[in-house]
Amino acid sequence: MTLAPAEADRITGDLTALAEYADPGLPGWSRRALGEPYRESRPWVERLMREAGLEVSRDAAGNLRGRLPGRRPGAGALVTGSHTDSVVGGGRFDGVVGVLGAIEAVRVLRESGVRLEHDLVVVDFYGEETNDYGFGCLGSRAATEGLEAELLDRVDDDGVPLHARLTAHDIDPAGLLAPAWRPGEVAAFVELHVEQGPQLAEQGVPVGVVTAVTGIERLVATFHGRRDHAGTRAMTDRRDAMVAAARAVLAIQRVGCEAPVHGVATTTHLDNPNPSPNVVAAEVTMASELRSVDEVWLSGARRQIAEQVVAEAQAGGVDVELDWTTDNAVVRTDEVVQGAVSAVLDEAGVPWVAMPSGATHDAVHVARVAPAGMIFIPSRNGGVSHSPDELSDPADIALGVDTLAATLRRLDREVGR
Amino acid sequence: MTLAPAEADRITGDLTALAEYADPGLPGWSRRALGEPYRESRPWVERLMREAGLEVSRDAAGNLRGRLPGRRPGAGALVTGSHTDSVVGGGRFDGVVGVLGAIEAVRVLRESGVRLEHDLVVVDFYGEETNDYGFGCLGSRAATEGLEAELLDRVDDDGVPLHARLTAHDIDPAGLLAPAWRPGEVAAFVELHVEQGPQLAEQGVPVGVVTAVTGIERLVATFHGRRDHAGTRAMTDRRDAMVAAARAVLAIQRVGCEAPVHGVATTTHLDNPNPSPNVVAAEVTMASELRSVDEVWLSGARRQIAEQVVAEAQAGGVDVELDWTTDNAVVRTDEVVQGAVSAVLDEAGVPWVAMPSGATHDAVHVARVAPAGMIFIPSRNGGVSHSPDELSDPADIALGVDTLAATLRRLDREVGR
Repeated sequence: MTLAPAEADRITGDLTALAEYADPGLPGWSRRALGEPYRESRPWVERLMREAGLEVSRDAAGNLRGRLPGRRPGAGALVTGSHTDSVVGGGRFDGVVGVLGAIEAVRVLRESGVRLEHDLVVVDFYGEETNDYGFGCLGSRAATEGLEAELLDRVDDDGVPLHARLTAHDIDPAGLLAPAWRPGEVAAFVELHVEQGPQLAEQGVPVGVVTAVTGIERLVATFHGRRDHAGTRAMTDRRDAMVAAARAVLAIQRVGCEAPVHGVATTTHLDNPNPSPNVVAAEVTMASELRSVDEVWLSGARRQIAEQVVAEAQAGGVDVELDWTTDNAVVRTDEVVQGAVSAVLDEAGVPWVAMPSGATHDAVHVARVAPAGMIFIPSRNGGVSHSPDELSDPADIALGVDTLAATLRRLDREVGR
Repeated sequence: MTLAPAEADRITGDLTALAEYADPGLPGWSRRALGEPYRESRPWVERLMREAGLEVSRDAAGNLRGRLPGRRPGAGALVTGSHTDSVVGGGRFDGVVGVLGAIEAVRVLRESGVRLEHDLVVVDFYGEETNDYGFGCLGSRAATEGLEAELLDRVDDDGVPLHARLTAHDIDPAGLLAPAWRPGEVAAFVELHVEQGPQLAEQGVPVGVVTAVTGIERLVATFHGRRDHAGTRAMTDRRDAMVAAARAVLAIQRVGCEAPVHGVATTTHLDNPNPSPNVVAAEVTMASELRSVDEVWLSGARRQIAEQVVAEAQAGGVDVELDWTTDNAVVRTDEVVQGAVSAVLDEAGVPWVAMPSGATHDAVHVARVAPAGMIFIPSRNGGVSHSPDELSDPADIALGVDTLAATLRRLDREVGR
């Protein structure tokens, strides 16, 4: 039995309606986790789930869950979904396509008269994007592992602790400390998402099957130079922290450019906390990150960057402290899920490529407790993402939803029986 | 008749007492113009002037003036002085030596029984250091030229306009618009100041005779790149505003290092106003400055920097706007004043060197209305300045005061008769 096709117009209508929930004081479509427009958008998503025939609940981590009961209650559920929060100045597709697309997939399955063996759960994970407390994937982390208590006590720039913000969003902070989901609750997970890069569009391929999700190494470097009068101190007798930091930015870029496969190295922030127009910078902080699905390259790049940054700073008389943290280890997606997606595409005669994901996703956290995979659809406008210019075609989204619906149906036969 | 020597202990006592007026919430000895510790310190300086036998008044620009009447009232005055405000995290000597040293010079002249023909005026200029409204030399500008009305309406980061801050310091903003000093009021001006650099100490020479004060060209550059996901966008397909700005920092440093005589080029601030750990920087602003007493080099360096910064940014797909302002034109000190200082030193057998000033000073503004010169004394601790580590030896300060007193006596014979 063939499934009914997803309706592009219906998905576009939903995308447009959800985009209305945006902070008017911020650029683009800004709907940040812990913010007011996001809080106001949650009941809208709940209603959309309910209208699609789902039984809606919120778990202890603040994630919205819409359940379509299967024939065999008690077997683990097939879970699909993503997130509906955005970065500041974000677009309308990142994450959103995976939630609204999952709801459309439910409509497709129901309209096609398909009843799955497993329960099917559509999840809208709370707060995937990096929040003001310095971490992302709040909801998927809390659902699968629980949050470290330390995170709840962190304060943002306004001095407000995370637990207070959560309480204001009707989420009990205590409920986040243990995994919100029961072991074995998830039989398999698949996340539909926009690529957030230009590869699929450039290659003219409508679907990507994700093989691995990038590892992320984060660096905070602090350069200690010497405070001098910028008018009287000779160029040859300076310990200029700004110059050392600029050399570091270029060293980090160089290492990224030399990556043999997809590897990126980016400096996103540089700050002289005590700037004065006539004082040589005495202290500069820098935030950078490295990403790759190749652990060997990541660890080599860390070493290379550390050596070059320290050597160049010291040559300029500047001391530097490097503080590295691993934000995400490389995660390979599950082969059964990958196989189900690619088999569906091959049967339908849809071209696809296997590809890594340079961005991290909720799927990374679900992968700790269940077989997990991802389906990518093309990002247009040169693949721009985390930007108001982010764009995906309705036809591409609909094909992604068709792929998702067929994959869920296939996984229903293949897993957890 | 020989003058009595300046008393190092007395000056040290005054320096130590004035240093008590510092903001406890800021590093070093922070006594910023428009701030509370500075406001509280003004009556202390007035009392010290009065105790030295001076008739004290405040002019319309908020400058403290202590007058020692001469034999011929009505002739222009010999004026000496500097400032007692500091940068955030400043030291105890920059400016302060020129005010407290001038008061000591008055004591020396009086104790030596010298009565000058001209009135002698010790001035403590209001707010020489760059304020939160983006300009310095508030008091000396207002005294000699008047401030542009636009400056009074500028607001600081707290949204408070300058005129409101001035009113809170008992200065009528309207009084700053026209020159507070009458034409011809000043017969000659000489400012005693610490070098704020290492040259005198390294050369073992106790006094510098200043020949010119640096010109300052300020650059604010804004780099416009493209907002991209830092995980998914390939290194070869980025328009990274941070990388372009880092290249600019190094281009500016390179131009400074190539200066044939004393020329400096410094980037003091770099900012991504919208930093996100996973977004390639779309906009970065940069603040830099160039200084030299060589106008030809300054204009050539501006052109070189503009060309290199634009070319390197464009090579990386980044647009850049350059906004240049001339903060100070090069000012040559008066030859009569230079000659008086050097003659005094030669007569006393004190070694001296002619030198430019890489920092700007109140003397630059007085030079617009009267013959003006400067005397530098050594900065110890490697010449560090605008820092709590700023240091000058009591013996060096005393010799500077001796030189100032003898110079004033000599100018009394040479000018305005």
